Amino acid sequence: MKDCVSVGLLGLGTVGSGVVHMIDSHQKELQQRVGCQVKVAKVLVRDMDKERNVDLDDSVLTQNPDDVINNPDVDVVIEVIGGIDQAKEFILASLNNQKHVVTANKDLMAIHGRELLTAAVENESDLFYEASVAGGIPILRSLVEGLSSDRITKLMGIVNGTTNYILTKMTKNNVPYESVLKEAQDLGFAEADPTADVEGLDAARKMVILGTLGFSMKVGLDDVKVEGITRVDEDDIAYSKKLGYTIKLLGIASSTNGSIELSVQPTLLPSRHPLAAVNDEYNAVYVYGEAVGETMFYGPGAGQLPTATAVVSDLVAVIKNMRLGVNGKSVILPQHERKLKEDEEIKSKHFIRLIVKDEPGAFSKISHLFQDRGLSLEKLIQEPVVNNGTAELVIITHETNQKAFEDVHNRLRDLDVVVEVKSRYRVEGM
Amino acid sequence: MKDCVSVGLLGLGTVGSGVVHMIDSHQKELQQRVGCQVKVAKVLVRDMDKERNVDLDDSVLTQNPDDVINNPDVDVVIEVIGGIDQAKEFILASLNNQKHVVTANKDLMAIHGRELLTAAVENESDLFYEASVAGGIPILRSLVEGLSSDRITKLMGIVNGTTNYILTKMTKNNVPYESVLKEAQDLGFAEADPTADVEGLDAARKMVILGTLGFSMKVGLDDVKVEGITRVDEDDIAYSKKLGYTIKLLGIASSTNGSIELSVQPTLLPSRHPLAAVNDEYNAVYVYGEAVGETMFYGPGAGQLPTATAVVSDLVAVIKNMRLGVNGKSVILPQHERKLKEDEEIKSKHFIRLIVKDEPGAFSKISHLFQDRGLSLEKLIQEPVVNNGTAELVIITHETNQKAFEDVHNRLRDLDVVVEVKSRYRVEGM
Repeated sequence: MKDCVSVGLLGLGTVGSGVVHMIDSHQKELQQRVGCQVKVAKVLVRDMDKERNVDLDDSVLTQNPDDVINNPDVDVVIEVIGGIDQAKEFILASLNNQKHVVTANKDLMAIHGRELLTAAVENESDLFYEASVAGGIPILRSLVEGLSSDRITKLMGIVNGTTNYILTKMTKNNVPYESVLKEAQDLGFAEADPTADVEGLDAARKMVILGTLGFSMKVGLDDVKVEGITRVDEDDIAYSKKLGYTIKLLGIASSTNGSIELSVQPTLLPSRHPLAAVNDEYNAVYVYGEAVGETMFYGPGAGQLPTATAVVSDLVAVIKNMRLGVNGKSVILPQHERKLKEDEEIKSKHFIRLIVKDEPGAFSKISHLFQDRGLSLEKLIQEPVVNNGTAELVIITHETNQKAFEDVHNRLRDLDVVVEVKSRYRVEGM
Repeated sequence: MKDCVSVGLLGLGTVGSGVVHMIDSHQKELQQRVGCQVKVAKVLVRDMDKERNVDLDDSVLTQNPDDVINNPDVDVVIEVIGGIDQAKEFILASLNNQKHVVTANKDLMAIHGRELLTAAVENESDLFYEASVAGGIPILRSLVEGLSSDRITKLMGIVNGTTNYILTKMTKNNVPYESVLKEAQDLGFAEADPTADVEGLDAARKMVILGTLGFSMKVGLDDVKVEGITRVDEDDIAYSKKLGYTIKLLGIASSTNGSIELSVQPTLLPSRHPLAAVNDEYNAVYVYGEAVGETMFYGPGAGQLPTATAVVSDLVAVIKNMRLGVNGKSVILPQHERKLKEDEEIKSKHFIRLIVKDEPGAFSKISHLFQDRGLSLEKLIQEPVVNNGTAELVIITHETNQKAFEDVHNRLRDLDVVVEVKSRYRVEGM
């Protein structure tokens, strides 16, 4: 069978090797799907002599990027080197050379996605990036195609595997954050410097991509309110459990009357909610559509072969388009200018955990403050703290807006009977 | 804006009205997606004078099918009348008239899918049927596109909303099947004649469609082993809970070395498994891919607007193909001849619940029988049945093949210390 497509790879790390492996081991099925042979023609590597676990002829490897991005024999460039500036330059050069591009680079797509997609449209090239969000879950394609007729109103995502692994272990074994983080690092589920994961930045990048696509709006990283999981303690988790909730690091993108909210924060979900059953390093995106109602897409958020599956499925889409002569037609540019919700427009329930003086009238003062702001209480637990004259009070409010809750939160801090506000979380998924 | 597509509708019942409503209310977004206006041109109805909750001019309605399927102004025919013979005839006529077809008809696609898809390919027409399986969940598209690069090894589906609703209520409230069925009928979640749902036939049809597509194999309804939920009793559910499991009506399509198994039966899943959290009338399909690992697609399996979302998303795909001139290219015909697994090749754990004589040596005889067949036990509960000299014994085995388990099952029945085999279920999801 004749080659129909030559692929150039930028990078041969974990994901790159996975892509080579899949193109090789699934060649027969790929040929069935696209009607011709798919060949890896050139691969940009940093070190020619490194031991590699892939079956590639030495002549395929190169240290010169031009051998890929300016190679007339290469039809599709797959970018899996990561990073921002160089990857961007390579992708732009490839697109301007009328090559199609598949990338797994969430950082790049979150920051420069619009510019790159515009270049793709101008060159009538495809630029697909399914692997950039939630690894093996075909969520971008589902938003664009499977739910294409519907109006998406809200997306909630567990889109970072490391933090979900940590929170799952904390919940299951009732252990503190630090010890689980260390264990996760030892097992390779967390990086030596875990900042981007545990502070929610990685999740924020993915929410920018999801929000841009879901609401066709020009939003960026600065538009996401981000809070990580480093301050979640095991007592928060224990109280949540008692109240029937599970804590997850949740990315939220929601739209009301043309304004959107983008955020990432530890959030309580009812334990019966499908997202609460997403455990360990798994990811999931929960989609609310006006007509379809609630759907969820679950799967591995990272890993060599899951990510490679997404990359190679994008490659299949590119090749099908090539054979039909319709490349560049399915690239979607965001239509709407950025319009963000005010705090008054962001509505949810809230969890708040207080240390209060264990004295007559304390609870009455607190409940009066809530009532005064029109904020009613749905559930509460009060437990005495042994031997120091304080009690722990945990409250879940009814739905309110962000501003009203902030206001109550600030006033609680100033209240004489409140010793400390230990923690506060958003509550979703009702 | 000029019309680009005229839609003809066969049927204006629940789903048909939902489709008209969505095309109307989402017209602006549809135009953005496809670049032109989408118009409902003709609608076949049974009764012209019936009161309807849709905004359509009377001139659009017709009682003559030819006004739709032979109408030169109609580009796309949407079949939502249901049934088999007439729907098949209408769809074939439409395809032979070079019209594209979208259908929500699972019965038809399960039985005559191959013939209809062949006609579509011959006419270079599109025939899409996303709504036929799991209503609002874009599962067919995900199998064909999102996971196109991977090799699917197993599909497990909760694909019938009625039975999932019944089992959820039985589990939550610990009540018997009959009373929940009645409640479901009163609420409109179950039909007056619930046979097709509760006996697993509806789920079997969907598994035929999923199995055909997932494994590209020519299989039919006769190839599915089907068992419904009518014999699941509340004690089975209670014992399952104690052992950490949840009972679901599960469709299974799995492939090993080119042979496949298709089945539908009540099945125990670990309560922490994502499918165990799929409650009420919701559906989900769990997909195992060789590279991607485990993914799940969750959402409403039926309902007016969820089903209409799938139909209109298919319509969007047809229109995009029309504008690109590539209709008929994405219709997939199954490639492989039918090859089914033998019982020896079907592997799983099993649950079995026995009434045994409460006498010395009884358990030893039973465990000896299992051991004799090489079948080891993973978990068990024994509880005395008050005042009648018998005990209840509940066992979960380690993984074994279907034949070995059947063999043990038959021999248990003949064992003198076994009074009765109360129930037996497959156990999945480890």
